[in-house]
Amino acid sequence: MALRLRLVAVGIEGPVNLGYIFRLSENFEVDELYLVSPTASVAESLRWAAKASDMAWKATVVGSLKEALRDVELSVCTSDESSARDLLRSPVSPEQAAELMIARKGTVALVVGRESVGLTRDELAQCDLLCTIPASPKYTALNVSNATAVLLYEIYKARRKSPEYEPPSRKTIALAEAYARSLAAAVGSSEDDPGLSVRRLLSKATAAEARHLLNLLSKACSSLGCRDMARRKLEELCGGPCEEA
Amino acid sequence: MALRLRLVAVGIEGPVNLGYIFRLSENFEVDELYLVSPTASVAESLRWAAKASDMAWKATVVGSLKEALRDVELSVCTSDESSARDLLRSPVSPEQAAELMIARKGTVALVVGRESVGLTRDELAQCDLLCTIPASPKYTALNVSNATAVLLYEIYKARRKSPEYEPPSRKTIALAEAYARSLAAAVGSSEDDPGLSVRRLLSKATAAEARHLLNLLSKACSSLGCRDMARRKLEELCGGPCEEA
Repeated sequence: MALRLRLVAVGIEGPVNLGYIFRLSENFEVDELYLVSPTASVAESLRWAAKASDMAWKATVVGSLKEALRDVELSVCTSDESSARDLLRSPVSPEQAAELMIARKGTVALVVGRESVGLTRDELAQCDLLCTIPASPKYTALNVSNATAVLLYEIYKARRKSPEYEPPSRKTIALAEAYARSLAAAVGSSEDDPGLSVRRLLSKATAAEARHLLNLLSKACSSLGCRDMARRKLEELCGGPCEEA
Repeated sequence: MALRLRLVAVGIEGPVNLGYIFRLSENFEVDELYLVSPTASVAESLRWAAKASDMAWKATVVGSLKEALRDVELSVCTSDESSARDLLRSPVSPEQAAELMIARKGTVALVVGRESVGLTRDELAQCDLLCTIPASPKYTALNVSNATAVLLYEIYKARRKSPEYEPPSRKTIALAEAYARSLAAAVGSSEDDPGLSVRRLLSKATAAEARHLLNLLSKACSSLGCRDMARRKLEELCGGPCEEA
């Protein structure tokens, strides 16, 4: 299955930025454009889309980020450094994000957020990785269309090269996340969100690294009697029963 | 002398793009912003500059690209691939442009052009290098603020690394250009613009490579009796008498 790039623009408020996002989607060969609850007028945005107004009709409008991330192999949210510091979780650079995305098979999603407040904490937590664009500490927040330009450019460049490593499967990551959550509960860990932390970590790992950690977590879970809990958490993550890797 | 980054925006027509250029200048630590004959309203642009409206008062407004490039060590014009193919001269990538710029001491200029028609052929010829952003062959033309974002981002990244080579001096390049023009005239070369071609070539070269070519061109000029012509052409380039390297 070939890589498909999905751009997910959440809550875009201004027609200029929406138009520029249509144009950038054509400039950098976005395969699928999802708009989550846009408040900007699509009609007004067309004059800013220049020769890419067709993208307005190709875009899929959905009501939540969760819908936009359905069946996605890897999702990368963007945010400026101030919120990234807050959410911690060691953000990746645009180049790293691009390298990690193009190694996937299937659909990968780049998620950009509202002009006024960016992505919410809940939205950031839904993504596998968080990416920040290096910028002046005096003013880290880029306009959303300019941030989208930088990220799509890095992904476009990376897609023209070959992937350099084998990434873990979606299922391995989900399993490891479920075990981590269960283990944390079983041992009374005080860490903020161990599941998210492991997901972020493994989204950057090779397949072999991920399998080793999964193996370790799974054994620890068996010893501590939390395998059943892990299975339930995995079902939550999968939205129903799902097989082990 | 430390590197200074000058962003030169030529003939910006829309207040949105002008405002975004102000904001990007702060985001990516542009040291000097030059506006060549902007037609956009600065007052209207401020709402698009967000927290960077101060840049509007720091910008220098000039009447021609030539003025904006005064005392510049290396200038890089940007253009999409269609015009680049036309002007030939092997464009450099944004990464290459950034690497070449940060190796300079003194002022380097990034030149971006009007929304409607970009930079004119004459303006493109005034720059040492031509840079194109890789983009879909179906739609290569980026919006000017988005193109500026990509290029400033690459330069910002590169500035945080150390330069990896010694570039030729401005004077070596100007001399080689003068010799090339004179030689071409002396031998009746039919090439389009041998001076520009040599300038583009040496703007990408190491100091040693440039000296070797200069030496060769200078000796050839002596043998063919075109040293005086070269001196006159050099004076034209320098805008007055100028010493040899």
